[in-house]
Amino acid sequence: MVGCRSIWLNPVTEGSRGSPAWARQIPPSFLSLRLSAMSSAVRQTYDHLCKLLNRAALLRQVSAVLEWDQQTFMPSSEGTARSRGAQLEVMAGVIHDAEVDPEIGKLLTRLRDPAVLPELSEWEQAVVRDSWRDFRRSKAVPKELAERRARLQSEGYSSWAEARAKKDWSLFAPTLQQLLDNTMEYAHCVEPELAAVDPYAVMLDQFERGMTPQRVDGVFARIKERLVPLTQAVFASSVKISQAPFTEGAPFAIEKQKQLNEEIATALGFDFSRGRLDVSLHPFSTSFGKSDVRITTRYKESEWFQALSGLIHETGHSFYERQLPDGNLPTCSSLSMGVHESQSLFWERHIGLSPAFWRFAAPLVEKNLGVRASPEELHKAANGVEAGFIRVEADELTYPLHVILRFEIERDLFSRKLAVADVPAAWSEKMKDFFGLDVPDVALGAAQDIHWSGAAFGYFPTYLLGAAYSAQIFRKISQEIGNLDELVQNGKFEPILHWLGEKIHRQGSFFTSADDLLRFATGEPLNVDYLLDYLEGKYRQLYGLQ
Amino acid sequence: MVGCRSIWLNPVTEGSRGSPAWARQIPPSFLSLRLSAMSSAVRQTYDHLCKLLNRAALLRQVSAVLEWDQQTFMPSSEGTARSRGAQLEVMAGVIHDAEVDPEIGKLLTRLRDPAVLPELSEWEQAVVRDSWRDFRRSKAVPKELAERRARLQSEGYSSWAEARAKKDWSLFAPTLQQLLDNTMEYAHCVEPELAAVDPYAVMLDQFERGMTPQRVDGVFARIKERLVPLTQAVFASSVKISQAPFTEGAPFAIEKQKQLNEEIATALGFDFSRGRLDVSLHPFSTSFGKSDVRITTRYKESEWFQALSGLIHETGHSFYERQLPDGNLPTCSSLSMGVHESQSLFWERHIGLSPAFWRFAAPLVEKNLGVRASPEELHKAANGVEAGFIRVEADELTYPLHVILRFEIERDLFSRKLAVADVPAAWSEKMKDFFGLDVPDVALGAAQDIHWSGAAFGYFPTYLLGAAYSAQIFRKISQEIGNLDELVQNGKFEPILHWLGEKIHRQGSFFTSADDLLRFATGEPLNVDYLLDYLEGKYRQLYGLQ
Repeated sequence: MVGCRSIWLNPVTEGSRGSPAWARQIPPSFLSLRLSAMSSAVRQTYDHLCKLLNRAALLRQVSAVLEWDQQTFMPSSEGTARSRGAQLEVMAGVIHDAEVDPEIGKLLTRLRDPAVLPELSEWEQAVVRDSWRDFRRSKAVPKELAERRARLQSEGYSSWAEARAKKDWSLFAPTLQQLLDNTMEYAHCVEPELAAVDPYAVMLDQFERGMTPQRVDGVFARIKERLVPLTQAVFASSVKISQAPFTEGAPFAIEKQKQLNEEIATALGFDFSRGRLDVSLHPFSTSFGKSDVRITTRYKESEWFQALSGLIHETGHSFYERQLPDGNLPTCSSLSMGVHESQSLFWERHIGLSPAFWRFAAPLVEKNLGVRASPEELHKAANGVEAGFIRVEADELTYPLHVILRFEIERDLFSRKLAVADVPAAWSEKMKDFFGLDVPDVALGAAQDIHWSGAAFGYFPTYLLGAAYSAQIFRKISQEIGNLDELVQNGKFEPILHWLGEKIHRQGSFFTSADDLLRFATGEPLNVDYLLDYLEGKYRQLYGLQ
Repeated sequence: MVGCRSIWLNPVTEGSRGSPAWARQIPPSFLSLRLSAMSSAVRQTYDHLCKLLNRAALLRQVSAVLEWDQQTFMPSSEGTARSRGAQLEVMAGVIHDAEVDPEIGKLLTRLRDPAVLPELSEWEQAVVRDSWRDFRRSKAVPKELAERRARLQSEGYSSWAEARAKKDWSLFAPTLQQLLDNTMEYAHCVEPELAAVDPYAVMLDQFERGMTPQRVDGVFARIKERLVPLTQAVFASSVKISQAPFTEGAPFAIEKQKQLNEEIATALGFDFSRGRLDVSLHPFSTSFGKSDVRITTRYKESEWFQALSGLIHETGHSFYERQLPDGNLPTCSSLSMGVHESQSLFWERHIGLSPAFWRFAAPLVEKNLGVRASPEELHKAANGVEAGFIRVEADELTYPLHVILRFEIERDLFSRKLAVADVPAAWSEKMKDFFGLDVPDVALGAAQDIHWSGAAFGYFPTYLLGAAYSAQIFRKISQEIGNLDELVQNGKFEPILHWLGEKIHRQGSFFTSADDLLRFATGEPLNVDYLLDYLEGKYRQLYGLQ
């Protein structure tokens, strides 16, 4: 599963993304250059490699089907869960074997020969580059360590869930310590040189290829600098935004909400002949190949906006998967979790929170749910800001600070500045600084997120980086597509989807960092001021600040 | 997938059932004897074997999840289907590799040593016996042949579907000839000695372990002898049975039918915490282990009985899977397709078509669908007999002749008495003999069933054998549970389910033929007169025959 709202980490594919030493900038014309004039022996070698890579990718898709089923339709008994766990474990082994097939190593050695490599097109060279990195990393983790890690992740989940339920950090802390130690060990296997300097850098790179902790430090510092005062000004504003349009007239029948969401997904461009929309406890998006991209959302009868917002978010993820380059090759997959998140947030926020979107959506909301609010009222309600404890419930203005808090704690855990036992205290202090809130317990604090229980350290920052990428991409699209508001208001989303397809999705992971991709798509590397300008402009106006 | 109503064959597990040379009668106390006093070296060897067998079984379960999804929820695009095909193909290879793991061969050689084998319990010896047969058979099929066979099965499906749609046998005949030739070759690999005498015997044994074509000849001849005259007497009767209670008051909302079916499934004993009920084009039952048994049915608004009848049938299959012995070992699986079918038919016919069942169900039908027919009217409607062309639409009285027709044609195809091109003519002749019907085209004749397109020769007879087993089992249960009618009428199905669990389900495939299992459960081997007596008694009364 990728790009889910509240989680991700996939133990099976963990370690399959990272930063190659020899990444370089490539002209955009590469897509037409895939077939190069290589000798037939090299062609055979390359084709054989692709066959083996395709095999491993298909096996990962199989595992993803099991995971999707587990989250959506699988029966609830403990025996069922155990049995599915056993199936996934066996598949993890099969996938690992396919990924470290010695034949892949041999073929890559032949293709990476400096006398041979230039025979390949730039695209094919990228395939060799990425598969070598994946292969090297998979091989680098001893089976014993991988198994211990998988076991810890599974134990981590249980003890985290218990700690959260009982609001008792000490129930999770010992496992978290083990997870942290294991992750250090893991990082040293995967990228020994980089880990010797900073193991956190290895983990970050796994989720956000080409990104360094230092760069994130800088970006996040800039965000804090502008966002903490803005947020506090909004909190202090006398303007209060009502959420009434989302709740008045409740209960909203689930069937009718489903109908609304399907209509909106279809209008945005979701193709139900190559995808599904289902219900799960946590909304997520997954893909079993470009032709089978599935998303979920969740409904409650008392409020209809969260389900719709979740749907739009996951639809954004699904577009990325659906428009990736053809072929089950490493370079045909998404570039990073941050870029994936930029695609979901693009639709959720820059489209779904815009005045034009609500001019489009208001009649559909009225038709399906009988809600008679004006587009202006709906737009306002969707953009209310509130200080809260829970990241996944946070609005776009406060969300960045939730991420920064977690990133700072992760950094301090990895540098041993902070002990696991002291995480709740550090958490409380930061919540006070950022939001002026007193954290009542760890369920509303350090134990609210699943990520660390699965050793997904380095994942959190990708959420905020994604938000920054999406703001930059939106600004560029607004410039290039002149009448964006008009299109959105008329439900004509195709040109936007097409632009994203050309500039982001079809690039797969040919570029080796979000910076390079953004340079290609927007003309400059990440510039976080686009996000900050967007937030400042929008919320100063909404909350009547000077 | 197993025991589906209109189809089955699973290319992946094809060849995993068959008749061992040294099968023998075992006392019923074996279940308590599983833990034998074996030496620790033998224990280790046996445990290691179980681990590898469990691994292969889990991988087959994974494949079954993909197939279930394909039939229920998978999106409809061609690309999706292609992609799922590729995933299944890779899994088939992975499963095959797991099944022929040389380590399994080594362990089995050690355990089959006459000095070692007696150290194992009878149950464990059965595990060794069955895994050796599976291993030997899987190893016996060369990869090239297996791949050619899989390709032919896939081509067979397309050309069959086209032939049926265009009502043109010649579109399917060439592929059918290839499938037949391939199957001969396959049978000679799997069981060379038996195939030298009769390749059809090998195929029959794959689906119906321990059954021989000669035995089926005898059983089916007896059925024809009594059933052809009975059927013709029923056709000639002036009594006409109305199906009005199933259609009057239409349309029946699908949601309400679902509600009815779920209530009835729950009452029968279907456990929704360890299973699911979904919708598919063809009803089927599948299992991903005992704790995850899923069934499907299909609904139409114009008539509600077919969906309910399909549901009860599949529920019967699901009970067998759910109550199998613990452990993913060969001996923990169902004995044969015929025995599987006996379990579905037991519930569909001996329970679901009984007067007592309709006394139980009538109030539920009225509550959910508003149908106000009396239990007697519903019981009558459910038991109407009509001569028809289509096997899957046939009632229990005419169904046996549909099966016998196919069996006779298969026998003649394998003995080369009949050419593939002449199948439709042979078909028409038999339909005239059995039912007095003139077959208008092959869509209503030789091209109606999917089985041959998948090289599932030898499968058809298991449907009728299953019917015979179920009648014999029902007679025994009626004797042993005194107040069966009262239980059924009050919706107390648990004692029946318990009896079946003890006598059939929990025996797994410890016995190596249905005869041995029936001897254990009912005190005598298959005696087809129980089926014939049941049909005679019931339909003579319903149709007012002397």
